[in-house]
Amino acid sequence: MFFASDNGAPCPDPVMAALLRANAAPAMPYGNDALTASVQDRIRQIFEAPQAVVHFVATGTAANALALATLCPPWGAVFCHASAHIQNDECGAPEVFGVGKLLVVEGAGGAMDPAALDAAITRLGTSVHSVQPGAVSITNLTESGTVMTPAQVAALAEVARRHGLPLHMDGARFANALAATGATPAEMTWRAGVDALSFGGTKGGLLGAEAVVIFDPAKARELELRRKRAGHLVSKLRYLSAQFDGWLADGLWLDLARHANAMNARLAQGIAAIPGASLQYPADANITFATLPPASHARLRAAGAQFYDMGAGQLRLVTSWATTEAEVEAFLALARG
Amino acid sequence: MFFASDNGAPCPDPVMAALLRANAAPAMPYGNDALTASVQDRIRQIFEAPQAVVHFVATGTAANALALATLCPPWGAVFCHASAHIQNDECGAPEVFGVGKLLVVEGAGGAMDPAALDAAITRLGTSVHSVQPGAVSITNLTESGTVMTPAQVAALAEVARRHGLPLHMDGARFANALAATGATPAEMTWRAGVDALSFGGTKGGLLGAEAVVIFDPAKARELELRRKRAGHLVSKLRYLSAQFDGWLADGLWLDLARHANAMNARLAQGIAAIPGASLQYPADANITFATLPPASHARLRAAGAQFYDMGAGQLRLVTSWATTEAEVEAFLALARG
Amino acid sequence: MFFASDNGAPCPDPVMAALLRANAAPAMPYGNDALTASVQDRIRQIFEAPQAVVHFVATGTAANALALATLCPPWGAVFCHASAHIQNDECGAPEVFGVGKLLVVEGAGGAMDPAALDAAITRLGTSVHSVQPGAVSITNLTESGTVMTPAQVAALAEVARRHGLPLHMDGARFANALAATGATPAEMTWRAGVDALSFGGTKGGLLGAEAVVIFDPAKARELELRRKRAGHLVSKLRYLSAQFDGWLADGLWLDLARHANAMNARLAQGIAAIPGASLQYPADANITFATLPPASHARLRAAGAQFYDMGAGQLRLVTSWATTEAEVEAFLALARG
Amino acid sequence: MFFASDNGAPCPDPVMAALLRANAAPAMPYGNDALTASVQDRIRQIFEAPQAVVHFVATGTAANALALATLCPPWGAVFCHASAHIQNDECGAPEVFGVGKLLVVEGAGGAMDPAALDAAITRLGTSVHSVQPGAVSITNLTESGTVMTPAQVAALAEVARRHGLPLHMDGARFANALAATGATPAEMTWRAGVDALSFGGTKGGLLGAEAVVIFDPAKARELELRRKRAGHLVSKLRYLSAQFDGWLADGLWLDLARHANAMNARLAQGIAAIPGASLQYPADANITFATLPPASHARLRAAGAQFYDMGAGQLRLVTSWATTEAEVEAFLALARG
Repeated sequence: MFFASDNGAPCPDPVMAALLRANAAPAMPYGNDALTASVQDRIRQIFEAPQAVVHFVATGTAANALALATLCPPWGAVFCHASAHIQNDECGAPEVFGVGKLLVVEGAGGAMDPAALDAAITRLGTSVHSVQPGAVSITNLTESGTVMTPAQVAALAEVARRHGLPLHMDGARFANALAATGATPAEMTWRAGVDALSFGGTKGGLLGAEAVVIFDPAKARELELRRKRAGHLVSKLRYLSAQFDGWLADGLWLDLARHANAMNARLAQGIAAIPGASLQYPADANITFATLPPASHARLRAAGAQFYDMGAGQLRLVTSWATTEAEVEAFLALARG
Repeated sequence: MFFASDNGAPCPDPVMAALLRANAAPAMPYGNDALTASVQDRIRQIFEAPQAVVHFVATGTAANALALATLCPPWGAVFCHASAHIQNDECGAPEVFGVGKLLVVEGAGGAMDPAALDAAITRLGTSVHSVQPGAVSITNLTESGTVMTPAQVAALAEVARRHGLPLHMDGARFANALAATGATPAEMTWRAGVDALSFGGTKGGLLGAEAVVIFDPAKARELELRRKRAGHLVSKLRYLSAQFDGWLADGLWLDLARHANAMNARLAQGIAAIPGASLQYPADANITFATLPPASHARLRAAGAQFYDMGAGQLRLVTSWATTEAEVEAFLALARG
Repeated sequence: MFFASDNGAPCPDPVMAALLRANAAPAMPYGNDALTASVQDRIRQIFEAPQAVVHFVATGTAANALALATLCPPWGAVFCHASAHIQNDECGAPEVFGVGKLLVVEGAGGAMDPAALDAAITRLGTSVHSVQPGAVSITNLTESGTVMTPAQVAALAEVARRHGLPLHMDGARFANALAATGATPAEMTWRAGVDALSFGGTKGGLLGAEAVVIFDPAKARELELRRKRAGHLVSKLRYLSAQFDGWLADGLWLDLARHANAMNARLAQGIAAIPGASLQYPADANITFATLPPASHARLRAAGAQFYDMGAGQLRLVTSWATTEAEVEAFLALARG
Repeated sequence: MFFASDNGAPCPDPVMAALLRANAAPAMPYGNDALTASVQDRIRQIFEAPQAVVHFVATGTAANALALATLCPPWGAVFCHASAHIQNDECGAPEVFGVGKLLVVEGAGGAMDPAALDAAITRLGTSVHSVQPGAVSITNLTESGTVMTPAQVAALAEVARRHGLPLHMDGARFANALAATGATPAEMTWRAGVDALSFGGTKGGLLGAEAVVIFDPAKARELELRRKRAGHLVSKLRYLSAQFDGWLADGLWLDLARHANAMNARLAQGIAAIPGASLQYPADANITFATLPPASHARLRAAGAQFYDMGAGQLRLVTSWATTEAEVEAFLALARG
């Protein structure tokens, strides 16, 4: 009963197999290998974006901070939701990498309200005394587990564009967001107005690989230099590429995300049916925030179920590609008591 | 005939096997797993340093920059050899991570001359107008492929200590340096006066894992926070730990380094015997800088041998754990003509 | 009728006279002159703090950012009121100088609510994933023009101390706060728990000089180095010292502040008596935020009165040492219509 | 006998008078006053550069660091002479403000050799592993006291332009360089290929004011924002403008520089004629580096002459607008013995 994080799951066999394939022969380091080039191409195809810049890094924090520092000047503010990972969970990495400041905007369920975003940008203004509007960053799947549709993304993109600001999407759980909405990668990103995506692989089943996808090729060189000077150009880059190679093949990545989402739906429905239990947010994809009766909580802990305790009887449950129906049922049985 | 870099070699089977073992079950992310703790302990044992702080990162640049930023204040200068990786090959990462400035010191064969180091520190002085002496960084194996003995390390450590400066060692090829000298990890580091080590695994056969080892436990928390804010806390940290797990078991890491060194010795001896060829530095470990006759050079390129061309007929050859005698002989046969 | 800012006033004669006195002979640069030492001593006496570190800079932003970077580590968050100058009006300077992040806390009238501060620090926590609690910064006189008493300062200091955090005071209008409360410099700062003060001179009548006062002498060297590397060590430092020399003599600085406060009190009382007008905050010292009837507003603008328009009929009025009763009366006459 | 530094001299009467004039009435802060605009215009006229961006700051370190950070990206290297103030005397300010790294180039007498500059830029190259060529910075008057003619500036500018790099001039003693060569401001800067100038006023007689002059108006906004976020936008900016106002009127600034240079010429000639004394560099302007016989040295110290001791019997002597013939003769009399 492992619901602590999708970061805790093991990696699926095709990913491990791809690693082993990549290990068959020597290859040039730093991404100067054929596999890396081919996986970058595949990602451009998947996004229907032949000009996109694609670079791999080992962590989501690096992907976010590099993308944002490339989009936003040192005196620029990034507007994000109050729950954003870049604000709360990256120990200031965006600022280390070059962003001026983060300014938080409210909104229901992990997504900024477009009117609140508009007001925040307007309120900041462009006096030389304050940081300048620099970029907008959204998270999809949100940190609350809710999904934004392409239309919701487009509504925020429209606000950003009106103020001349680029739009970044933290897609640590991008696959889950696609699986939840049925949108294509292109529909969810550049067609909706997204300029740069942190395309998460790790939470979806990789050992540790994320792709920064920037749709404006003019940023390619800057992104490469920023990656290197942050120590994020891994020398044997082919092993990051290999992970994506195994994951993207035959749509595996989306199959895995659909499975995780399905397990979570079952879990959330089961919880919602328990007297005294409630869901904090719509459980759109693979995360459920729930309040359980104290007795349920205690039984689950006693049985060794793993999840994050948010305090006040709330818990965060995350399913992954590796979550089984049996785990879900065992959890629900304990929760029901 | 792959002599371009030890970063180009594949990874040995025990490392891949350890990855697969680590993949058998879910585990808590961010290093909160049992495997990570046990590998950290093993490294402390190997270094005979029960108090040492050990943290894993994915790149050598990250290991160096994090170690240096932890040792050196923002207004401090790091003294290093003119050929140092931190000065020439990290796109300014030490400064990004928090070091004030790098100041280069001369010395034969990739190692600073102790008297030159002493003079440089004294010359900088402690006026408020300049950066302050902050730390000393040495590289072993050096970038020239020469090895420093523990006595040579101690001579530089003595200069550093006299000026109150901590000493960092970039050990991207630490295993090769140990194999070349027969020194123990403790003799080469803290017993010789080293305060922090970038303990390289990637060039020695890992997919991408390095350990920062700081011998003063008071620095533990700062190092962790610096790692996180630089985006270098990987979420599925167990897969970095696993690589070290497979590599350190049964002394494999030193066996691999000894093999690489032996292949290089054979290569260097063969080259030195070619009329018109010469070695630029003593080929102490797994790197040879050589000048070859133009005809040799051309034959090797035509046959597809891979190596770095340093200009003016010089080339850099690097052997690895995967280099075979057959490769060396094939190279030498072509070089001889 | 100049109520735009206390930064707009000229400088009083004794300050200009002190500048001319300092100009009589050559002197060593960079603060190595007798006048600078004597003014630093005088400030230590005024604060009854013989160990305090006192250094002069040319701007309040520099004073704040240097003080905060000296108190707070790079991965630390500074908690401040949502209206704080460091958050809204310094274009990110605290982060440039080395602070990790600013986190805003609510509270009435420009001062943080102690319970809200406590909750914010607790909520941030000390997980490695987020920035760490680093320091607390308060502003007195607040940006809303309200004054904090020593008891109010002590209440916030108590929260900070409980969490192990140092306390900084942005005292751009410190003299006005003292004049409004009758507190001594020591009572308002270190006796109430303040660790560092930006002691503002410019708004109080200097051409451009502020003092950073840090009560812990262990920080002296760091502050000096931070000042230099930020380009804030002025070479002819004696001319900053001279300004303070003229201003501090015979309690002039407090007399000037009392005058400014008195002019503002008269202004605020006059406004409050106008039908349809209202004050936004208690006009404790030399700033009044007021709403005036549209006709009043229009008459004032037409007559050339200078003030900041905050939108929606609100205006900010600031008096200075140079404000005259005649100006106040002229303003009120127009406002009354 | 004050020869310690031109920073030690008092300020000439017309500068003080201009300060007093500026103090006659209130004015809008932050440079939004008529005097500031008019002085900026005057500087544009003096430089025959109607499009130039002119902004005032309080220190030369700020002027240099702001200009360089505006010209050079965060991953860029600034090439400068080994004796450059930005490398040795600013405690890392250029890096704090945003420059990636400084790389030093040799050359006689404080000026880079064009061929050495060309070689250094070429050697750095544009691999992603190292910082990128970012800008070139020269100093005129050099730190050795020698002057560069417009032709020498143009020769270095040609190298910079060939590599696509902007050229910055640290003109802390720009007036002395003009006085020494007879060149106009335009000839010495943009006509010779200079993109940005730190136009020093402080060493030439101001209390503390420097101008950053950038000849490309596209950089205006970035420079303003960088100034603010570094805490270098002084609120009562009119008092910096006033200093330039008094100094630039009627060519005073060049008269003062010519006087300083003349006093230095007399001093240097006198020293050169002393048996056993020698000059280290050509004393082109207002600085003399000299070696004096030990007895001379001792006599001067005993008599209270102020100068910097460079060690090994060498001393640095700096004249200013305030140096008198009597001081020079008194010094020479003691030196001769």
